[in-house]
Amino acid sequence: MELIRTLSQLVNCLRSSCIRRRVAVVCPNDPHTEYVIIRSLREEIAEYLLVVDADHKEMAYSLRSASPDFVRIYEAPTPDDAAALAVELVRTGEADILMKGLINTDNLLRAVLKKDTGLLPPGGVLSHVAVAQIPLYHKLLLFSDAAVIPRPTLEQYRAMITCDVALCRVLGNEQPRVALIHCTEKVNEKFPHTLSYVQLKDDALRGRFGQVLVDGPMDAKTACDKHSGEIKGLTSPVVGNADVLIFPNIESGNTFYKTLSLFGDANMAGMLTGTIAPVVVPSRSDSGNSKFYSLALACMAGKLTQESL
Amino acid sequence: MELIRTLSQLVNCLRSSCIRRRVAVVCPNDPHTEYVIIRSLREEIAEYLLVVDADHKEMAYSLRSASPDFVRIYEAPTPDDAAALAVELVRTGEADILMKGLINTDNLLRAVLKKDTGLLPPGGVLSHVAVAQIPLYHKLLLFSDAAVIPRPTLEQYRAMITCDVALCRVLGNEQPRVALIHCTEKVNEKFPHTLSYVQLKDDALRGRFGQVLVDGPMDAKTACDKHSGEIKGLTSPVVGNADVLIFPNIESGNTFYKTLSLFGDANMAGMLTGTIAPVVVPSRSDSGNSKFYSLALACMAGKLTQESL
Repeated sequence: MELIRTLSQLVNCLRSSCIRRRVAVVCPNDPHTEYVIIRSLREEIAEYLLVVDADHKEMAYSLRSASPDFVRIYEAPTPDDAAALAVELVRTGEADILMKGLINTDNLLRAVLKKDTGLLPPGGVLSHVAVAQIPLYHKLLLFSDAAVIPRPTLEQYRAMITCDVALCRVLGNEQPRVALIHCTEKVNEKFPHTLSYVQLKDDALRGRFGQVLVDGPMDAKTACDKHSGEIKGLTSPVVGNADVLIFPNIESGNTFYKTLSLFGDANMAGMLTGTIAPVVVPSRSDSGNSKFYSLALACMAGKLTQESL
Repeated sequence: MELIRTLSQLVNCLRSSCIRRRVAVVCPNDPHTEYVIIRSLREEIAEYLLVVDADHKEMAYSLRSASPDFVRIYEAPTPDDAAALAVELVRTGEADILMKGLINTDNLLRAVLKKDTGLLPPGGVLSHVAVAQIPLYHKLLLFSDAAVIPRPTLEQYRAMITCDVALCRVLGNEQPRVALIHCTEKVNEKFPHTLSYVQLKDDALRGRFGQVLVDGPMDAKTACDKHSGEIKGLTSPVVGNADVLIFPNIESGNTFYKTLSLFGDANMAGMLTGTIAPVVVPSRSDSGNSKFYSLALACMAGKLTQESL
């Protein structure tokens, strides 16, 4: 398939595939969630299983009235019950994607992470991937982790790279370039993540991540700007041309996300990975566009599950 | 004085003050350093004490030929000797600012940090401040630390805030708004820097930093975007209107710097703080503009020393 270079290309690709993903939504009861549902129904990329709690049914029923063929409603006593039921719909294969509505993120994640009945397979690593469409970059840029893992261990880095590379392939990129981010190019035991990076590069050479180019440590600018690399005399094929950035901690990943979206005028999409199906947990301060693109990204990832990796 | 809102206003302010700062340059022997020297001489904001090593004198002598009244030359056998001599020129009051030319940063810092003969006073904290002029922000934004302190301690946070607030005042801002950056608004012992933040806010209320507003934890977007704050129901005067961002680690500070300069189309300036005089250590991948603005920032800071804080 052709490489997808923008988020609207991603939506077009979904439309032309004529597949509607089945999305289970927990507590669809706020204007942001309504916007995403209405827009994705109009774009014909999704159908919905709306799981409502007893006190907040109105929006769901009005959405079903407007699109009776593509909206089903499930009722549960409380938001926590709604979360459990939506997770169950994904587990039993009735839904392809889980999406958060108006429920506390911690409560939703409790259902997602619940042993035996949740969405994380044994030994699975829950992480977050963001996809940025940046006016000053020549392609989509994926990165992890802006939201979930505070200080990745080696195993968590491996899981993040595996998921992000798999997502690159879904977006038509057969040989993703992965940059391991630090402040400088130096490996230094004072910064233990740079020691993990050495191991990850070795993993890559041994084929652990498939066809992929992994390099680092390097800073975020060097990863995305050829000129910076030239000044430093770096010749790696990752330098200046990264598809994926792996950050050493949640504060740097989160700062990248927030800076791009505010000052880089970027369109963002994001989802949780490591689960048996994509989980969409939009951040409150994301734009409407960003929330819609997050759902579209999850639809694209579709059946990209931990098992298939 | 009037609030300085752009880096070119900063240069104009220096020009109109008619004060030339005396800048000691270690090993001026590369085109970037030459550019900064020539431009600042033309703008009449600096005069130079060029400290050359035995093998690289040509550029210095050619600069002196062009501006004999404002360029003096000092010779030293090696680059390390040149660094020691330039530091001595600052210590003895013959120079106001130290600037790096073509010498390894570690070697220059060794001279700066040397006990008894260096530029860091007893108990001083070496840190870095950057000043960003961002097209999508309504004023200059200062932040620390993108370059020096890996994981600030409480004392180091205090020193960073003290220096950055003092620099804000030099730029005409009498009541700087300081945002303490994290991924969320939650104080959480799993993230020890958020516990330091509680103490720093208390420090601020007790007047430790003078007239200042300190708030956090909050993410970088919330600090600089009123809309994000409103969505989260935050009402602090710092939210959406920060003058200073304090980052929890060097990876997040560095990521902010690199992302702004590459994807935010920002003009950047930066210098070391905590020393008895500003030290300018441009990064190789900085633009020529950024290197010049860094020198201009140091000229503005001028005699802003640890002692005066």
